[in-house]
Amino acid sequence: MFNPRSIKHCRACGAPAQYRVPADDNRERATCTVCGTIHYENPLNVVGTVPAWGEQVLLCRRAIEPRYGLWTLPAGFMELGETVRDGALRETIEEAGAQVEMQDLYTMLNVVRVGQVHFFYRARLLDTHFEPGPETLEARLFREDEVPWDEIAFRTVKETLRHWFDDRRTGRFGFHAADIG
Amino acid sequence: MFNPRSIKHCRACGAPAQYRVPADDNRERATCTVCGTIHYENPLNVVGTVPAWGEQVLLCRRAIEPRYGLWTLPAGFMELGETVRDGALRETIEEAGAQVEMQDLYTMLNVVRVGQVHFFYRARLLDTHFEPGPETLEARLFREDEVPWDEIAFRTVKETLRHWFDDRRTGRFGFHAADIG
Repeated sequence: MFNPRSIKHCRACGAPAQYRVPADDNRERATCTVCGTIHYENPLNVVGTVPAWGEQVLLCRRAIEPRYGLWTLPAGFMELGETVRDGALRETIEEAGAQVEMQDLYTMLNVVRVGQVHFFYRARLLDTHFEPGPETLEARLFREDEVPWDEIAFRTVKETLRHWFDDRRTGRFGFHAADIG
Repeated sequence: MFNPRSIKHCRACGAPAQYRVPADDNRERATCTVCGTIHYENPLNVVGTVPAWGEQVLLCRRAIEPRYGLWTLPAGFMELGETVRDGALRETIEEAGAQVEMQDLYTMLNVVRVGQVHFFYRARLLDTHFEPGPETLEARLFREDEVPWDEIAFRTVKETLRHWFDDRRTGRFGFHAADIG
């Protein structure tokens, strides 16, 4: 189980924290030894899109770690102040500089090992002009037989791409939920 | 926009933190004034079920704040080490002591104002024996015309219930995504 246990000090007062099970709880939480503040740690959402242009999908080559140089769909951590869809659109603009029309939620993939849930929306590219941001080396379109399957940065991206190309053949894009080991 | 700005001290070293925009970022983050650790704050997932017994739905009357005494579907914060579905099942057992067969993801509701995303799965009750946990005063089944609509604890619960009873009339349970203002 993913458990960073990275909280050594209280966010409220700075005193040392210890992992212990609070009253009325059944899990260890970082608890302040002085003021008693309880610090919860919960899964994070990663949100992105599958930007499509006909039978081609837009991938971005990563300019940052982890997985520098590998290919990914535009995606990143969901921020406060936005919806899942807002965040997916923001990442598409930030990482690929792509203009898209957002479509339906397409995949929800649990990555329990790292405490994340990944969400990808389908999106329709409005043109093929891309302006990759600082986190992206290169953004380009791939047909299925061109996808660098051995150089995909994340399993959730590979799984989402496989579903997309499979569904495109049948012409029916359903919603897919799965757990990534 | 929801921004708790509640981090006053560094989780790593306990020194004071200040909100500032880190290099290569475009949002203020709590940053340690001594060791430089950056503390991210992100939305949280709330996960639950719509436990159904024929035309009836199981609701729980809250024994805790907020909304003590009001009715809710079983739901709570998703924990590290579980999937969205795992968490929804766990909350159903913890809050209602109900045995269910989990079905498909049913609603995803953004509550940007409080930095949360709520997920409800459809679930089929296996029997009508409930054992409410310490967070629940009472757990019971409601037909649509019995639901205490003015005493529902959360708007995401009300929205999910309305969809469920509407969909039940048509016999088609789709997936519903919405943003709660």
